[in-house]
Amino acid sequence: MAGTKFAYVRNFELPDPLLPDTYLVCRLDGHSFHRFSDEHGFAKPNDERALLLMDHAAKSAMIEFKDIMLAFGESDEFSFLFRKSTNLYNRRQSKILTTLTSYFTSCYVLYWSQYFPDTPLRYPPSFDGRIVVYPTERAIRDYFSWRQADTHINNLYNTTFWALIQKGGQTATEAHATLKGTVSATKHEMLFSQFGINYNEIPQRFKKGSVIVREIVAPESSDKGEKLEPPFDPFHQQCSKVKKKNKLETKVEVLHCDIISDEFWLPRRHLLEN
Amino acid sequence: MAGTKFAYVRNFELPDPLLPDTYLVCRLDGHSFHRFSDEHGFAKPNDERALLLMDHAAKSAMIEFKDIMLAFGESDEFSFLFRKSTNLYNRRQSKILTTLTSYFTSCYVLYWSQYFPDTPLRYPPSFDGRIVVYPTERAIRDYFSWRQADTHINNLYNTTFWALIQKGGQTATEAHATLKGTVSATKHEMLFSQFGINYNEIPQRFKKGSVIVREIVAPESSDKGEKLEPPFDPFHQQCSKVKKKNKLETKVEVLHCDIISDEFWLPRRHLLEN
Amino acid sequence: MAGTKFAYVRNFELPDPLLPDTYLVCRLDGHSFHRFSDEHGFAKPNDERALLLMDHAAKSAMIEFKDIMLAFGESDEFSFLFRKSTNLYNRRQSKILTTLTSYFTSCYVLYWSQYFPDTPLRYPPSFDGRIVVYPTERAIRDYFSWRQADTHINNLYNTTFWALIQKGGQTATEAHATLKGTVSATKHEMLFSQFGINYNEIPQRFKKGSVIVREIVAPESSDKGEKLEPPFDPFHQQCSKVKKKNKLETKVEVLHCDIISDEFWLPRRHLLEN
Amino acid sequence: MAGTKFAYVRNFELPDPLLPDTYLVCRLDGHSFHRFSDEHGFAKPNDERALLLMDHAAKSAMIEFKDIMLAFGESDEFSFLFRKSTNLYNRRQSKILTTLTSYFTSCYVLYWSQYFPDTPLRYPPSFDGRIVVYPTERAIRDYFSWRQADTHINNLYNTTFWALIQKGGQTATEAHATLKGTVSATKHEMLFSQFGINYNEIPQRFKKGSVIVREIVAPESSDKGEKLEPPFDPFHQQCSKVKKKNKLETKVEVLHCDIISDEFWLPRRHLLEN
Repeated sequence: MAGTKFAYVRNFELPDPLLPDTYLVCRLDGHSFHRFSDEHGFAKPNDERALLLMDHAAKSAMIEFKDIMLAFGESDEFSFLFRKSTNLYNRRQSKILTTLTSYFTSCYVLYWSQYFPDTPLRYPPSFDGRIVVYPTERAIRDYFSWRQADTHINNLYNTTFWALIQKGGQTATEAHATLKGTVSATKHEMLFSQFGINYNEIPQRFKKGSVIVREIVAPESSDKGEKLEPPFDPFHQQCSKVKKKNKLETKVEVLHCDIISDEFWLPRRHLLEN
Repeated sequence: MAGTKFAYVRNFELPDPLLPDTYLVCRLDGHSFHRFSDEHGFAKPNDERALLLMDHAAKSAMIEFKDIMLAFGESDEFSFLFRKSTNLYNRRQSKILTTLTSYFTSCYVLYWSQYFPDTPLRYPPSFDGRIVVYPTERAIRDYFSWRQADTHINNLYNTTFWALIQKGGQTATEAHATLKGTVSATKHEMLFSQFGINYNEIPQRFKKGSVIVREIVAPESSDKGEKLEPPFDPFHQQCSKVKKKNKLETKVEVLHCDIISDEFWLPRRHLLEN
Repeated sequence: MAGTKFAYVRNFELPDPLLPDTYLVCRLDGHSFHRFSDEHGFAKPNDERALLLMDHAAKSAMIEFKDIMLAFGESDEFSFLFRKSTNLYNRRQSKILTTLTSYFTSCYVLYWSQYFPDTPLRYPPSFDGRIVVYPTERAIRDYFSWRQADTHINNLYNTTFWALIQKGGQTATEAHATLKGTVSATKHEMLFSQFGINYNEIPQRFKKGSVIVREIVAPESSDKGEKLEPPFDPFHQQCSKVKKKNKLETKVEVLHCDIISDEFWLPRRHLLEN
Repeated sequence: MAGTKFAYVRNFELPDPLLPDTYLVCRLDGHSFHRFSDEHGFAKPNDERALLLMDHAAKSAMIEFKDIMLAFGESDEFSFLFRKSTNLYNRRQSKILTTLTSYFTSCYVLYWSQYFPDTPLRYPPSFDGRIVVYPTERAIRDYFSWRQADTHINNLYNTTFWALIQKGGQTATEAHATLKGTVSATKHEMLFSQFGINYNEIPQRFKKGSVIVREIVAPESSDKGEKLEPPFDPFHQQCSKVKKKNKLETKVEVLHCDIISDEFWLPRRHLLEN
């Protein structure tokens, strides 16, 4: 056949499987979203429309990719947790990474007009992505704590920064100078005493980010020890035709709650156990 | 700072640099486009609107990513050639791969309505991608020959297949049976004698695919040995601030020509030499 | 300096770090040891001198590489378990792999004459090696169970095979035919009824392989919760100068015991916990 | 079978193929040879016995591994060039790397007593290794130039350093201080005027290192265009049973010549062309 003599070029395609039985975290970040948010008139310090659009895209991705158990988003980034036993695309790194990144991007553009009806897209927004492999529950807990702590730090800074500009009449340079070296308590105080803003009353969405979680829809009669999937089956790869039993119905929910403490994780053991 | 004690999770992010001084080919493929084309009423065997949209997205990507020298597309796939000296994102694989995949997807969705004004998107289309590293000019030539030979084979098959159905009244199963084992000449003959279709008169776009090339815009006075970039500079990584000299102006053109023979490549040495 | 203009070639040396906080198993295998054992007159089915030499080399390696907690050997292979928190050579794969492989080989040749005083080496013996990353205790337990089960299966087969040849007068081909499809019990019976060999009385070394373990030398006064090392410190990589406290004295012991059941592992939690 | 239920642990063994059609350079380095050379009384600045032993081990490795075309050694390191079409062990990185490292180490220990008959090994010497992939002839030329330039720089420094100590009565600290910041010409002058050493008369072995090359043994009648192997066959991997034709007889030679200039490479096109 005409193409046969060239087909050897496929030999250069090297395999890229991810280590089995480990958690996969895929983090997406908006590409040059500083400029993008300026060009599209995002409100400062937080644009709720933009955050709702991010949530919409992330939730859609979780409905499409059943092995994503949890996602956490803030600003222009989202992290997705695949359960450790996932065998999606035989755990081929590039395939998982690009399919999710592409799907998320597609949702973002497709649903844009629902959130920005009066602001047409001036150019195509894009996201970069990476997959990080984590071997332990501890590391996954710490990963999500890291992102949520980051949300808090950034939001407190940005809230004060923009108050100084929007209400205090400072320039950006002055506002940065004002905030330099200040600790958390100082910023709280500054917000309250100078601008009458009680940081604690700021919406949870801004302070905690978005937690999108695959919740188990408990059937009436089931009262203990249920699982989303049977325990990790080491023979999975050889016996991929084996019928999955005991799958539970789940639904994807958007929350704005703390994910650092045990309170979030203990009742949701299914997120990490398979 | 609050997040500091969790920041160690970044240690799990492993580096993924691509081998220096090699050609990178990034190939994108539509994800489940068989279903997608059905759901959105694509014409068979070729839907010109869909191909023009693919070209638009690919051309936009080449304008955005200056180190892509050439792209080749057919059906729902596109391959992009990065010049071998590219230092885009320090040649980090995931970053290059996802940024391009995301940008292309974003264009596809954003420009959809220009080509399908009466067909709103029913769900988000997506693409997967991979990067393959090629060390030699020979391998790159053969890679693109492989894709274009594939275009020809598929198009001849599909053209005959759909003629048998649309004009010959066969079912899909019957048409596959009719074509089973037939050689190229038989299909040509079948098209001509049964359906009055001269395959040679079918548009080049369908037979050759889309070739998007970064052409040099030649200044009047320059008559020989011009280059897009100075020769590969091994110190590039250390001296990234060094001023690039002698860059030539280029423009991105869409062609539908043969890229297997030397005729395409010989006058375009800039595509492969750096 | 003279070499400076060539030093860019170092840019082609890509990083190869292994995933943090995972167990590393390095398995070495004799290269073409079928021929090697023939050429050097190894006794069949087991040559105790050769096994003692392997143990000597492995034990030496464990004394040299403090982060190896356990090794298991049979025939011409040895598997080494590095504790999951090891930061040896910053977890660079090639460095760890080659240093251990080279050291083991060096010991094998250097100590050869102690075990084969009358058999000079006729040519240089060599080993290949690989590192496999395991994320969980379960996988490590199963890895070592896999190797020891293999030891048992091979030894029972080989013991019967060589009895058929050495005592039964069969050729190799006949012996293989005799054993084809036989289950374990049949081989036991064959050994006992035909050759008076009680398999249970065969030395543990041959049936169980060699287990080389880093045992804690318990100080009199210590009675609970001791550890070889402080718990995994995620900041280890940044703070590599931090003083290690509470290190316990250990010694390396050679055993020939079962490592499939919990009896081996439960009293030795230090092997897997860090 | 007993081991079957554990065999899933093999799924954790990930593939590690090296990019096809690229040069592989494997560099071995003595592990802690500063201490090793002290403990075994190596002569300073160069110990010819030690260098001859390194050459012996490297030459043996080239006889064992037919796809190594060239090796270059200095001090306690050796670099081996595999031809770009090598399919040794299907180009599996760990397998190639460890087998060569182990074989070299084995030779070093086995042949030690031939070069150090009165100095028994006090402990096992070892080497680390790495494989670097190079895509072009230019990079390979520059790699070997880099190593030989390094040999020259080190040897000139060390020769002067040890003259200052051995003949000039300086301490190591004083000698380093004397040499600090000196250029090449100053060291030549220092050697000649203070110690009567004409650097140019120092043996080529010390100044140029060891070049071990696979030379073609030319049959009388062959006068042009001969090749070690047929040109690179992209189908090689699929058709590995295909008979190799036109292989030329080669022999392995040890030289101490310049490998930076074209004079070495031009008459030996077989080193790089396949």
